[in-house]
Amino acid sequence: MKALLIIAHGSRKQTSNDEVAKLASAVKGLPSDFQLIEHAFLELTSPRVPEGIEKLVADGASEVVILPYFLAAGYHVVDDLPELLTTAKAQYPAIKFSLLRHLGAANLMPKWILEQATV
Amino acid sequence: MKALLIIAHGSRKQTSNDEVAKLASAVKGLPSDFQLIEHAFLELTSPRVPEGIEKLVADGASEVVILPYFLAAGYHVVDDLPELLTTAKAQYPAIKFSLLRHLGAANLMPKWILEQATV
Repeated sequence: MKALLIIAHGSRKQTSNDEVAKLASAVKGLPSDFQLIEHAFLELTSPRVPEGIEKLVADGASEVVILPYFLAAGYHVVDDLPELLTTAKAQYPAIKFSLLRHLGAANLMPKWILEQATV
Repeated sequence: MKALLIIAHGSRKQTSNDEVAKLASAVKGLPSDFQLIEHAFLELTSPRVPEGIEKLVADGASEVVILPYFLAAGYHVVDDLPELLTTAKAQYPAIKFSLLRHLGAANLMPKWILEQATV
């Protein structure tokens, strides 16, 4: 089963974390190639990334696509996420992991900006 | 003339700020209803928001649409941006300003996530 893991920073503001959980729910509600979709946080709140991955594996994921829900390539995106990926690959060698570019670097972002600006 | 102002947080990392400038350039390169497109930052780097608005007004904007390039509704989005909007309206009463929801709250975000996850 193909899984998507949306990773956000995590905030002290619970409403911000709730936004991410709601977003993951909304993504689950759309048709896609992903049989499993979860979210996880880098810091400050749970579920953390290792828990998110553990859940997906327990639910039967054979492939995990990681989407960094970040706009900027700060050290979290540049350092922490590749490190988490390395750890996950070592822990679950049978599972195929892939790390997408952070959302802000998406080729489609300029188009999305205009979609949001013209609603 | 209708103008779009993309507002990001601003970072100590110059590469992050450059990403925003590049994004604004890319948006300019797409067909849209906006004759003017600029970016500005809340903190740490320039151009700041008042400068961005000043430039758009000097360039002939009659309407300024503000897009908060933020994923989470932190205090910047909740407090600072409405305050900046109030100041801008008072300073330029002849100009129509509107403040969009932050990017993370876009109705289309779940669809965008899947677009990014399936490239």
